[in-house]
Amino acid sequence: MKPSILPSSLVKLIDELAKLPGVGPRTAERYAYYLFKTTKDQNDRLAEVIAGLHDGVGVCKKTFALVEAGQDISPLYSDKNRDKQTIAVVEDPLDIAALEATGGYKGTYHVLGGLLSPIDGVGPEQLNISQLLDRVKEDDVQEVIIATNASVEGESTALYLQKQLKDTEAAVTRLARGLPVGVDLEYADQITLTKALEGRQQINE
Amino acid sequence: MKPSILPSSLVKLIDELAKLPGVGPRTAERYAYYLFKTTKDQNDRLAEVIAGLHDGVGVCKKTFALVEAGQDISPLYSDKNRDKQTIAVVEDPLDIAALEATGGYKGTYHVLGGLLSPIDGVGPEQLNISQLLDRVKEDDVQEVIIATNASVEGESTALYLQKQLKDTEAAVTRLARGLPVGVDLEYADQITLTKALEGRQQINE
Repeated sequence: MKPSILPSSLVKLIDELAKLPGVGPRTAERYAYYLFKTTKDQNDRLAEVIAGLHDGVGVCKKTFALVEAGQDISPLYSDKNRDKQTIAVVEDPLDIAALEATGGYKGTYHVLGGLLSPIDGVGPEQLNISQLLDRVKEDDVQEVIIATNASVEGESTALYLQKQLKDTEAAVTRLARGLPVGVDLEYADQITLTKALEGRQQINE
Repeated sequence: MKPSILPSSLVKLIDELAKLPGVGPRTAERYAYYLFKTTKDQNDRLAEVIAGLHDGVGVCKKTFALVEAGQDISPLYSDKNRDKQTIAVVEDPLDIAALEATGGYKGTYHVLGGLLSPIDGVGPEQLNISQLLDRVKEDDVQEVIIATNASVEGESTALYLQKQLKDTEAAVTRLARGLPVGVDLEYADQITLTKALEGRQQINE
């Protein structure tokens, strides 16, 4: 698009918005035009929260979860009711929110900050893996639940962690793979169905 | 999601981003986390362009296209090489960029600012229709090309404009409906195929 057709400040905004993950030029245009049509007040509010984001968010020194700025340790770890001998290992902090939403998990978390991906130059040193191993020793951890995605990177990270944890006391588990609740068997993809078969569970005594 | 799990400034940002068109809470979370992971510099730049958007963008008094702030008339109208006797009527300013990208149109534009939609309370008074009728008279317009979307609202707006322009000199035309270039006939939907049949053109003499 030639710069002369749209005003420069709109073009600049489109360029910035197009940096968001999964946002192409068309979507960025749509967002930018929406922002132009909303009130200046709402835009000022959005600008303020974006500019203040880094100052308002901190990272937990134990779990690497996101915390309020100035907070050293996440309440998900410091809370006495949390079982520190169980750690769910996740890729990024948003995964914690998803697991917490189930309401059924009372252990703690550990954020890796990514997944192993040699192509992207992400090795074990780039992830919070050594800190995980420290926690396993310090807190006498009994179970490490690897809750990474079922992608190639997620699987190889799980395998790597499994090897690293071999000589510890902790049992290493992985989230179950199988049919999502509410999905018809005939619509499940082959790999999911294979995993569901492999992970089948006895239901009688 | 409980507010305690994510820091409040991140939650605030997610709430604001979820107001963007087509953005649900999950997408907003992903955008917010991306912004957290990028540099403070980049966020400051984004915040600045959002906050400055309204001050940098103006609206052309003739065509209602977006212009640089302080500019009264869009260069797409003031340009001498533009044929002022031809007007392409579009829903919003972004449609202009799409038509300009073809490089084949030398007329002017008129932005309606929306489409007729009684359900949403959008009547002819909410759109820039009277200004269009004024332009048709003032500029002795010969052709009004209605370039609204092929939606129900787009069609009914086209019909309304057609009626309003009945007593003028201007021919009223509509963008051709038919098979998109490069799409196989067997994959075209029924309505498109019906329109393609209706709009078929003789290719011999």
